[in-house]
Amino acid sequence: MNDLRKPVPVTTQSTRDLDNLLDALRATAAQRDRDGGHAAEEKQWIADAGLLTLAVPREFGGAGARWTDIYRTIRAIATVDSALAHLLGFQCLQVVSVDVWGNDAQRARYLRGTVDARWWWGNAVNPLDTRLIATATADGGYRIDGTKGFCSGTRGSQMMTVSAHDPATGKPVFGVVPTTRAGITVHDDWNPIGQRQTDSGSVSFEHVTLAADEVLHRSEAPPTPRATLRTLVSQLVLTNLFVGIAQGALEEARRYVTQHGRPWITSGVATATDDPYVIQRFGEMRLQAVSAEALATRAAEALDDAWQKGTALTADERAHVALATSEAKIVAHRAALDVSENLFDACGARATGAPLALDRFWRNARVHTLHDPLDYRVRDVGRYALNGTLPEVSLYT
Amino acid sequence: MNDLRKPVPVTTQSTRDLDNLLDALRATAAQRDRDGGHAAEEKQWIADAGLLTLAVPREFGGAGARWTDIYRTIRAIATVDSALAHLLGFQCLQVVSVDVWGNDAQRARYLRGTVDARWWWGNAVNPLDTRLIATATADGGYRIDGTKGFCSGTRGSQMMTVSAHDPATGKPVFGVVPTTRAGITVHDDWNPIGQRQTDSGSVSFEHVTLAADEVLHRSEAPPTPRATLRTLVSQLVLTNLFVGIAQGALEEARRYVTQHGRPWITSGVATATDDPYVIQRFGEMRLQAVSAEALATRAAEALDDAWQKGTALTADERAHVALATSEAKIVAHRAALDVSENLFDACGARATGAPLALDRFWRNARVHTLHDPLDYRVRDVGRYALNGTLPEVSLYT
Amino acid sequence: MNDLRKPVPVTTQSTRDLDNLLDALRATAAQRDRDGGHAAEEKQWIADAGLLTLAVPREFGGAGARWTDIYRTIRAIATVDSALAHLLGFQCLQVVSVDVWGNDAQRARYLRGTVDARWWWGNAVNPLDTRLIATATADGGYRIDGTKGFCSGTRGSQMMTVSAHDPATGKPVFGVVPTTRAGITVHDDWNPIGQRQTDSGSVSFEHVTLAADEVLHRSEAPPTPRATLRTLVSQLVLTNLFVGIAQGALEEARRYVTQHGRPWITSGVATATDDPYVIQRFGEMRLQAVSAEALATRAAEALDDAWQKGTALTADERAHVALATSEAKIVAHRAALDVSENLFDACGARATGAPLALDRFWRNARVHTLHDPLDYRVRDVGRYALNGTLPEVSLYT
Amino acid sequence: MNDLRKPVPVTTQSTRDLDNLLDALRATAAQRDRDGGHAAEEKQWIADAGLLTLAVPREFGGAGARWTDIYRTIRAIATVDSALAHLLGFQCLQVVSVDVWGNDAQRARYLRGTVDARWWWGNAVNPLDTRLIATATADGGYRIDGTKGFCSGTRGSQMMTVSAHDPATGKPVFGVVPTTRAGITVHDDWNPIGQRQTDSGSVSFEHVTLAADEVLHRSEAPPTPRATLRTLVSQLVLTNLFVGIAQGALEEARRYVTQHGRPWITSGVATATDDPYVIQRFGEMRLQAVSAEALATRAAEALDDAWQKGTALTADERAHVALATSEAKIVAHRAALDVSENLFDACGARATGAPLALDRFWRNARVHTLHDPLDYRVRDVGRYALNGTLPEVSLYT
Repeated sequence: MNDLRKPVPVTTQSTRDLDNLLDALRATAAQRDRDGGHAAEEKQWIADAGLLTLAVPREFGGAGARWTDIYRTIRAIATVDSALAHLLGFQCLQVVSVDVWGNDAQRARYLRGTVDARWWWGNAVNPLDTRLIATATADGGYRIDGTKGFCSGTRGSQMMTVSAHDPATGKPVFGVVPTTRAGITVHDDWNPIGQRQTDSGSVSFEHVTLAADEVLHRSEAPPTPRATLRTLVSQLVLTNLFVGIAQGALEEARRYVTQHGRPWITSGVATATDDPYVIQRFGEMRLQAVSAEALATRAAEALDDAWQKGTALTADERAHVALATSEAKIVAHRAALDVSENLFDACGARATGAPLALDRFWRNARVHTLHDPLDYRVRDVGRYALNGTLPEVSLYT
Repeated sequence: MNDLRKPVPVTTQSTRDLDNLLDALRATAAQRDRDGGHAAEEKQWIADAGLLTLAVPREFGGAGARWTDIYRTIRAIATVDSALAHLLGFQCLQVVSVDVWGNDAQRARYLRGTVDARWWWGNAVNPLDTRLIATATADGGYRIDGTKGFCSGTRGSQMMTVSAHDPATGKPVFGVVPTTRAGITVHDDWNPIGQRQTDSGSVSFEHVTLAADEVLHRSEAPPTPRATLRTLVSQLVLTNLFVGIAQGALEEARRYVTQHGRPWITSGVATATDDPYVIQRFGEMRLQAVSAEALATRAAEALDDAWQKGTALTADERAHVALATSEAKIVAHRAALDVSENLFDACGARATGAPLALDRFWRNARVHTLHDPLDYRVRDVGRYALNGTLPEVSLYT
Repeated sequence: MNDLRKPVPVTTQSTRDLDNLLDALRATAAQRDRDGGHAAEEKQWIADAGLLTLAVPREFGGAGARWTDIYRTIRAIATVDSALAHLLGFQCLQVVSVDVWGNDAQRARYLRGTVDARWWWGNAVNPLDTRLIATATADGGYRIDGTKGFCSGTRGSQMMTVSAHDPATGKPVFGVVPTTRAGITVHDDWNPIGQRQTDSGSVSFEHVTLAADEVLHRSEAPPTPRATLRTLVSQLVLTNLFVGIAQGALEEARRYVTQHGRPWITSGVATATDDPYVIQRFGEMRLQAVSAEALATRAAEALDDAWQKGTALTADERAHVALATSEAKIVAHRAALDVSENLFDACGARATGAPLALDRFWRNARVHTLHDPLDYRVRDVGRYALNGTLPEVSLYT
Repeated sequence: MNDLRKPVPVTTQSTRDLDNLLDALRATAAQRDRDGGHAAEEKQWIADAGLLTLAVPREFGGAGARWTDIYRTIRAIATVDSALAHLLGFQCLQVVSVDVWGNDAQRARYLRGTVDARWWWGNAVNPLDTRLIATATADGGYRIDGTKGFCSGTRGSQMMTVSAHDPATGKPVFGVVPTTRAGITVHDDWNPIGQRQTDSGSVSFEHVTLAADEVLHRSEAPPTPRATLRTLVSQLVLTNLFVGIAQGALEEARRYVTQHGRPWITSGVATATDDPYVIQRFGEMRLQAVSAEALATRAAEALDDAWQKGTALTADERAHVALATSEAKIVAHRAALDVSENLFDACGARATGAPLALDRFWRNARVHTLHDPLDYRVRDVGRYALNGTLPEVSLYT
């Protein structure tokens, strides 16, 4: 049983190192929330902590960590800074993309390269956004032109995955390019109400070369169930960010009330920590956080099981992981919003000072929980509960 | 039956004038939320619309409006800018303070003065904050020294009400001073996460004279039930701000979805406005808004009835108004938070761009709903429901 | 402002009379809930209290009460017995059916007859159930054959309204017949989990004559907006039953806790009525009850206004009443269920003894709130909030 | 990951056997809910399925099952009959009582006896009820006189555990007696609104002998942490009943809608199973059921871990199991109530027929969730979340 207040790090890291990282990130989180923009120094800390290779298989020198451990780490970072936790999560996602889509040479080149050169990876994969065009070239590669939005982690990255629309086939092309390649411009145009340092601006491509050996796959064949686990890896990154936000908001509320809480004038108690209604709010906040964490763990364990089955994984088994993922994501979505709102009822009026920026938990949750509509995820769960229909493979499930 | 989408103005104003004011305030609300600080120009618009004298009795040349009408106006402004609506509400509150606490000469001087000179009033009345000290002077007045926090509306005001602690009697002194009086410094230190233009910074007083005829009352006698209605006037200002925030968030959601909404990829509907789940979210948002409005109206009607009873008002009758006020405030508190959060689920991810500042509804609600703890207000309602105990007169009920 | 604990009767009845009726009904409500079946004696009490003619216009000797008063009376009875309150509500509904559908002769005959002979009316109008067939006869009347379900109030009634499907026109026929007419059999087959004494069993018709002057209307012309108010009268009957159930459950909880409540062993308080969490539950229960009551009153006032407009009522005005009715019904639906469930958390384990039958509030609420699906009513509200579309006239709105 | 619709049996039972038992219990559950009283035949089926020795250690010939498996079995039975599931759960609880409180001879005698003679055990242990008096006798035993309430499972049992108040020491005495011992009368006075076949009536004792070697312990020393796990075993029995009720209600709703559901007239869909709002209700019901199940599993795993530590278990470790148990119980409490209420909104009006008795899920949940107040359990969770205070050992935690 995991204690919310003592996140457990992955095995490759000592608890102390992670604690130091969390303390350091927390110290500047409010200020960086105001500033937005790129957290170069803090991303370096994450790299220095050895976390960039969490998802790289051991055969390439990575940590080869289990998903339960990876998500626990992401969650821990999200308690203090869900934007940087998102960057780490998407780092793992790009690593996985190469792992499940790449051929042996690509896996060796890019995954070992990630270990050796400590690459941060950016994400320009978003098949819904078809403004980026791939034109096949004679050598088996493509020329890429256009713009892609919501390219999380691209700014400040060394490598990036990219998807582009090939009008000749009507299908997307997936590949890997160095972020510094000629013709690529990473724009500083990410300005949301929360999750302000996820480097999720747009990227434009002008005559960018995607060499034949950089093409990960061309969608010739339907993806294997294992390859489609990538989507679930991504959804569980989001889920665990929500859990971490809930846990972090709870922790900030606890700190605030124990340090600054005052008993209400008609409460009849000596300290805010003895107030029966304040206690009840903490009870409810914790209940939401532990429910979300339990379902996130249940889904991560299912993903670990599925992952280990490799190519033997069936579509039905994969769909059950998708179902567990959706269940966890819905509960975590609500937990993140509710706890981060409740934080204020627990702490009182003086907690609303802008310098504290305690509203960042709600704003971070609010931005991130809109990635896809909650209602359609509930529908998926309902269809299974009523009709036994498992979720189909999609961009979100 | 009031249609949420067509707020009805007070009788002294044409619908057109108020609509123009609302449109003008809405046009800059997002930018002013970011900037914070003092809205001098917009406050002038409110003055120009003749709204500063809503609560001034007709005998002094004011509108002498009923509370139901005053609150409807405050609510309408709160749909687009709950900070400026707060300023208008507190303008009415200071007018009422003079009306219920002042003697005939004071009422004539200050209330007619408000009509003639279009004074904005600030609020430095907060008996919980005892840092401001009143020292009696030989002429029956006081010298005031110290600091008062949360002085809504003081910046940019011409007149202010003030309470100060008299150590000689252990009781508070209430009075009126011009904001420009020597020794008064209004600080620009209001920087919260929401309600950013309520001019609620601190005010310091150095050897400030409070003349004998400026002293409103000295707490010699327990206040009459009618005088204690002032607290309920104040609580219903807050309540109607919450209702207005809920209505405004709903209206912004409606505009956004009808103008920018896109059907979800797996929804099977042609437009977002036909999406069964989006429709359901609007249904739930409206249900919260109309519940809050109905209870706010019920409480305002009770206040109107009590107000007209004048000195004949009994303590028990007054307590029933307090109960209805608490009921309305609780329901409106929740409506404001829920609707302003739900707005985003209805609108989707692109509504989180910082320039839109659609999170201002939630932040405004969150700051303002913490004025006093919700839980103790629920306790008051519960004590009545279980034990028949009516709320006592307090600073909040 | 209405005090939940002191329901106000209609003007034709003294408070004392209604209080006596409520006390008498409450005394046997638990036992009659167990027994189910027909409450002949109790229905006589209601008749004796003069309540059968509440909705009969004064020109025919009835009370001609306003809807706000009628519903307040129904609500008061529902606090102790929502099944008998339903019978009274449907009595009013049948009276209204004759009033809005009948010609002058029919109105005179049936409405004055209700006053003179104290008829209880039953309801066999349910156009969705097309098993009852009307065959036109040469004299302008019909022969009626078949069965109708959910015929509330028919058992023990003297008169009944009926709808039957005319296959020749494909439209329903509406009429009035004495319940004792040859060929009519009222079945004793109503056996639900709640609302057990609403006499809502089935009625079968074998060669039953419906004379020409008993035919209320033949659906030749679309009904006027005023005629369609009948549906809203019906929906507000249900709404006020829900409100009454919520208020009654709250009242029973209050009685139980004040009389039998014990402080929890670790509560640290001397009596259950001082328990901070018990108080909070009562606060929440009351908040739901007053919200529901406020919206029910708002809708009844809208209905009163529309009713008084008579034939001048427009479709749009009628639709706004329908909207207010749906809003009230949804909030009251939830209040009835929540309060009647919460009752037990407030009272504790010993309140679950079968002889107390305190679960009857929840069971009554549960049966009655399923008349039509809540979700589609929320959809109606949402469509208005999002698209400005008012509810269409239907069997339920 | 456990599929709600396919409960997994303990290892000693084949899936088929348990499925047959569940089908048989479900077939008569509605009728037996109406009848109440003693389910002799059905209890025999449970005995025949070998389930009475689930918790008996293997050294005495029992299944020695892990708690995760025992609770899964209890949960599965609770899906169709939560009263009989309670009896099985309390059977395990009495077995555990002997196991943790008894000396070696007692454990051998009673636990092996349970295996050999297939004893059903009753529970007359309830230290809060001090009406049962123990008077020490010369031979080291006691004479027992008085009455004990809520003696679940005693009717029809062969053996029972009992606690009695010893006025000489002011402390309770715990022991084991055969139910048929002279002077014991098991009363048929259990008549609640739900959980009607738990045989939880009162038992009276007149000069009943409790021999010296039947005394389990005399409270001389504070119990070891391991011995106090008995309370958590009990609380997790309740928790898993709640989970089973939620799962069972969901399953009945699924059956009903797929078999009898009709699309609503304005839904625009062809079948109820395609209705977007019905689907959403199933989604929400499942989310509650899986959340409750995940937390119940998390707590059971914690109990398994603690159990295996035996005498090495520390008070702090034990308290963490208590915390996880409370968290699970709260979430399961709410899930059971919400799903069993929601069942009806999903199924519609015709599901309220008394013969179906679909309200039994709510009534069962309602009775059982009042064992101790939810609010104080939330308080325990809140105290930990806010102050780090772990739950103390008590009769309920």
